[in-house]
Amino acid sequence: MAADLAATAVAHANIALVKYWGKRDAELVLPWTGSLSMTLDVFSTTTTVDLSSPADEDLVTLDDVAVTGEPRRRVVAFLDLVRERAGRTGKAVVRSRNTVPTGAGLASSSSGFAALALAASTAYGLDLDATALSRLARRGSGSASRSVFGGFALWHAGHDDASSHAEPLPSTGFAPAMVIAMVDTGHKTVSSREAMRRTVETSPLYRPWVDSAAADLEEMRAAVSRGDLEAVGEIAERNALGMHATMLAARPAVRYLSPATVAVLDAVLELRRAGVAAYATMDAGPNVKILCAPADAERVAEAVAPHGTTVVAGIGPAARLVADR
Amino acid sequence: MAADLAATAVAHANIALVKYWGKRDAELVLPWTGSLSMTLDVFSTTTTVDLSSPADEDLVTLDDVAVTGEPRRRVVAFLDLVRERAGRTGKAVVRSRNTVPTGAGLASSSSGFAALALAASTAYGLDLDATALSRLARRGSGSASRSVFGGFALWHAGHDDASSHAEPLPSTGFAPAMVIAMVDTGHKTVSSREAMRRTVETSPLYRPWVDSAAADLEEMRAAVSRGDLEAVGEIAERNALGMHATMLAARPAVRYLSPATVAVLDAVLELRRAGVAAYATMDAGPNVKILCAPADAERVAEAVAPHGTTVVAGIGPAARLVADR
Repeated sequence: MAADLAATAVAHANIALVKYWGKRDAELVLPWTGSLSMTLDVFSTTTTVDLSSPADEDLVTLDDVAVTGEPRRRVVAFLDLVRERAGRTGKAVVRSRNTVPTGAGLASSSSGFAALALAASTAYGLDLDATALSRLARRGSGSASRSVFGGFALWHAGHDDASSHAEPLPSTGFAPAMVIAMVDTGHKTVSSREAMRRTVETSPLYRPWVDSAAADLEEMRAAVSRGDLEAVGEIAERNALGMHATMLAARPAVRYLSPATVAVLDAVLELRRAGVAAYATMDAGPNVKILCAPADAERVAEAVAPHGTTVVAGIGPAARLVADR
Repeated sequence: MAADLAATAVAHANIALVKYWGKRDAELVLPWTGSLSMTLDVFSTTTTVDLSSPADEDLVTLDDVAVTGEPRRRVVAFLDLVRERAGRTGKAVVRSRNTVPTGAGLASSSSGFAALALAASTAYGLDLDATALSRLARRGSGSASRSVFGGFALWHAGHDDASSHAEPLPSTGFAPAMVIAMVDTGHKTVSSREAMRRTVETSPLYRPWVDSAAADLEEMRAAVSRGDLEAVGEIAERNALGMHATMLAARPAVRYLSPATVAVLDAVLELRRAGVAAYATMDAGPNVKILCAPADAERVAEAVAPHGTTVVAGIGPAARLVADR
């Protein structure tokens, strides 16, 4: 038989240094811009897709709790896509464990759909190379296309399903730290999908951000390849502030920046004034991720600790199978 | 003799509901966009221009303290402009009193240069109508062109000195309250002049904001004329957030939003969720101005009081001479 009865995969969250913000094709999850990320060595999702107990419908659990509603619909739609490609029909039991707070702008969908893509494609007998796996993961959540790879990954925006996938950047030994300042791990009030849609459709500042992001991507690729932390940090911070600027101008405005977010941004400015190369990036939530040298990570974490819980992350590995029977 | 020996004028600060942000001609102070403001009944500047004790150079005091450096240079340059038009050369003693915290994004230059324009033009014997006074005040500080008028004033961007001036909107009885939440009255770290310049020159989001502001201005004029508080508030809030968005995307970023600013913005959202028509606008500083119905002003002030000192303002009068001998 071509397929395994069950497969378990683990993938890590990634944080974009040049952001993915806005789809030009919601069905295929084709973005308006290319993006570039760092996969973390914290915040992983471990997912088992088990076909050994056929049922009438897919059963999905996250941390042993049944997933329902829209989150379940997204997983089932993803499994349908895998089944269609594999020519299979059997339903699955999907069990996920997350070490990422879900839905708090901490990239839980990047690790989640990367792990699901690998586990489901393996269980249903698809034999995908990393590029094909990245394309598949993209359909579940755009950022998941990058969590297929470890280290730094560049997601080419592309123009169709085949051309829109991530690729890993060559390893150069460049390994900054990322201090995650979790100021609020509650569920965000506007989902990133809705925020993206509203920004693309209503913000007069969106298109020019798209135009400026192309230059950010090229400069960032070069800065990563030469291991230039200051350039990487400056480009990442300006790209993220620009993304949040497009949201502020949406109608109605989308503002993920909370008082604590801004307090952390102030602390990062203070660190730079004190000579520490620390740079902030924020996604669709109030938490802040701070890029710095590993030797400065403790000092950075201490500086922002009054405003939230901190986690110090480094560069993490590619998605991989951890059990396969 | 054509001129008075001294003239004293008072003018009130105005808060733009559709913002002035960015010059296309720094010398003439011609803006990229038209703007629309509400003159307040608080935050006034009273200025005396006295020619009775000729000296070798202009003497400028603010609240009895000698003004030096760049602020003095701006006042002297303005007096030179008035003297040139009046064909006069005598130096002046300029004494100003401010009830506005200076340089804290509370529109002190709008009241300051409107009062100076009226007092100096009177003292030096220029007989200017309100439109000519607005043009002259504009040369000192763009927003001062609007403080020449009471109530609501629209500053036409224009294309040269003659066409760039404010005009008062017809009074319709529409008289909202404005709650000023002063979260920080310290001097701002980046002047609004420098912030404008940097935004115009480096922010990829500036030009599209200019384009979107034209529609905001037309919609705002109509909303004010029909006394539609909710429309006025919505347009004002989106216009202000858009302006701050252009700054966030400047390089390096200009961020006037402090943790307390964002806390006030959160409180305004809460008020709206509770059914109170309250809308925020922010200028080049961390303080927030909240538009609401007079009947709601106390409730609004209480809601934001944890984050700063509040002042409740209403619609204020045009600049006027208060002493003239």
